[in-house]
Amino acid sequence: MLAEMGKWGAVSSWDFRSALIDTPAPVIDLDIAERNIVRAQAICDNAGVANRPHIKTHKSVFLGRLQLKHGAAGITCQKLGEAEIMAAAGFNDILVSYNILGRAKHRRLATLNEKTVLTVSCDNAVVARDLSTAVSGGAKPLKVLVECDTGRHRCGVTSPTAAAELAGVVNALPGLAFSGLLMYPPNGETAQTRSFIDEVRTLCAEAGLSLETVSAGGTPNLAWAGQFGESEFRAGTNIFNDRQMVSLGACAPEDCALFVYATIVSHPEPGRVMIDAGSKTLTSELVGFGDYGELVDYPGASLYRFAEEHGFVDVSGCKTLPEVGEIVRVLPNHICPLVNLYDEIAYLRDGELAGRFAIDARGKVN
Amino acid sequence: MLAEMGKWGAVSSWDFRSALIDTPAPVIDLDIAERNIVRAQAICDNAGVANRPHIKTHKSVFLGRLQLKHGAAGITCQKLGEAEIMAAAGFNDILVSYNILGRAKHRRLATLNEKTVLTVSCDNAVVARDLSTAVSGGAKPLKVLVECDTGRHRCGVTSPTAAAELAGVVNALPGLAFSGLLMYPPNGETAQTRSFIDEVRTLCAEAGLSLETVSAGGTPNLAWAGQFGESEFRAGTNIFNDRQMVSLGACAPEDCALFVYATIVSHPEPGRVMIDAGSKTLTSELVGFGDYGELVDYPGASLYRFAEEHGFVDVSGCKTLPEVGEIVRVLPNHICPLVNLYDEIAYLRDGELAGRFAIDARGKVN
Repeated sequence: MLAEMGKWGAVSSWDFRSALIDTPAPVIDLDIAERNIVRAQAICDNAGVANRPHIKTHKSVFLGRLQLKHGAAGITCQKLGEAEIMAAAGFNDILVSYNILGRAKHRRLATLNEKTVLTVSCDNAVVARDLSTAVSGGAKPLKVLVECDTGRHRCGVTSPTAAAELAGVVNALPGLAFSGLLMYPPNGETAQTRSFIDEVRTLCAEAGLSLETVSAGGTPNLAWAGQFGESEFRAGTNIFNDRQMVSLGACAPEDCALFVYATIVSHPEPGRVMIDAGSKTLTSELVGFGDYGELVDYPGASLYRFAEEHGFVDVSGCKTLPEVGEIVRVLPNHICPLVNLYDEIAYLRDGELAGRFAIDARGKVN
Repeated sequence: MLAEMGKWGAVSSWDFRSALIDTPAPVIDLDIAERNIVRAQAICDNAGVANRPHIKTHKSVFLGRLQLKHGAAGITCQKLGEAEIMAAAGFNDILVSYNILGRAKHRRLATLNEKTVLTVSCDNAVVARDLSTAVSGGAKPLKVLVECDTGRHRCGVTSPTAAAELAGVVNALPGLAFSGLLMYPPNGETAQTRSFIDEVRTLCAEAGLSLETVSAGGTPNLAWAGQFGESEFRAGTNIFNDRQMVSLGACAPEDCALFVYATIVSHPEPGRVMIDAGSKTLTSELVGFGDYGELVDYPGASLYRFAEEHGFVDVSGCKTLPEVGEIVRVLPNHICPLVNLYDEIAYLRDGELAGRFAIDARGKVN
């Protein structure tokens, strides 16, 4: 019943259909993931920028260490809680690319800053003052990057003037060390980002401030690494990739390292089967797609609806039909929130199930 | 800066804006949740049906016990892994309303059937034979309900004839005890469901089989409890409720027991603020809404886009604007996958933070 699998051939050597796998379950091909790690490192090396992978995708000490082993200069986290987990595991150069805010985080932030080389980002004076309150009185200053919006319109100050002003605010606050800029550029927008950064650099120089670090990121932007005027690059998703990255051209199908294995549990009516993976297994991320993931073994199938533990699959357009009891693979739309659902994930080496690793920072949202 | 809060007044007595709460965080008003438990029990009691709440919503031993204390006859789980957790905590009458399938689950299923009064559902002969293989040879039979599709088009056999046939298959298999029917009726479709069930009952009687249990469910269907021809009722979402349940008229706004508390971390441009809650905090469930949740303190605000740890809020239509550093409450679109993101959740009693309880079966997808 197996459809043509050439495109996804990298994991076809493992006979998952007869394996004793308890579905639904995400499975990572660690050979592919490691190849993705090595490739990102080579891209950064060739571009002359430091590689600071974003661990929000894998949230795993095991994989973070693999990234360091292959040459990463440090890691990026999105939340303080992730950074705490990684610091406890010995990571000693951590960027938290986030506006950390609120009294409840003061002690945690101060403790973490004593423990590791910590850098955070900030796009407004309220956050800057709060960071200062949290860490002033500590043994060393907290390194702060001013976040700049160079066109993506998420966070970040929206003009070079505002960036330089905030750099001055940060620099004047006790306990903080202005260390440079952080941006999450729109995909491929190198010129626009570079001119923004150059302008900030000039304004900062006039104020006697230098940009020790300029941090850029985003898996789709890896192709332009070094061209944003950055000194370091953050990419997260590329370690596993997903349907979205394939669709954006940021990777090839054979670079996808994680599939969710699901069982056909029902064939309730002609043209429709049900899998045992739904919104609690795959997330409800659509990210622009018309359905919830790609059944790579059944071209033409559409995972068009979810219940929490059920996936509705339209198989009316398939040449062959999966049978009840059969295991199929789903390529997720967006891998990062999915990994965050699991305490640990199984992995393959040489096409065989070889072990499991912990998603150590799973659920660390604050 | 506080907008008029009458509609959501039940939790307004807690001064969450000055509380030392580490956002983002879901917080449950346990007084409201308990009132919802009591109300569901009263509805079932009045309708003369057993109450078998679905714990897939809360996944919590603590709340399951509260449901039993208020009169529940047993509990419903959606996955074997959930049932294992609840059985280990002493729950001794568990329905798993799911097609359990696959060799990897055989030993787990057999062990669980020895440990507790276990019932499962099944809508096809492949699953029935697999269940039999798993449990035959055990000390007691596994109780099996045949799942019927009375119009929702999820799982279930689609005709009374097919239901009676599958009942016969189940009854003939070693280790299985045919125990009745299970359905998840379309909201309010009582006549259609009742006539389907009546027809199966007649066909089964002709074959010498009786329907010990007829199980119906769905929070929106609670209003029609007892009218589906059922002997027991399963409802899950009603313990907390959510924006979807309010929208469907299945509850009033003041029956919503869970809000996610988030901090305004940035005001990057006029008309837009950013909160520290995104897809990893609130899930990406839209369930028909145009945005990702309701900022109940700011009428007119729209949580229109997510990053993993960022929520994009359009506040251009708000009379007052939230300030950076302010904590706001988000009513989630769909509560069930959200609860599954957290290991434990804080709760209020009498409007004050009173403790935390574990989401014991979090992440138990198989």
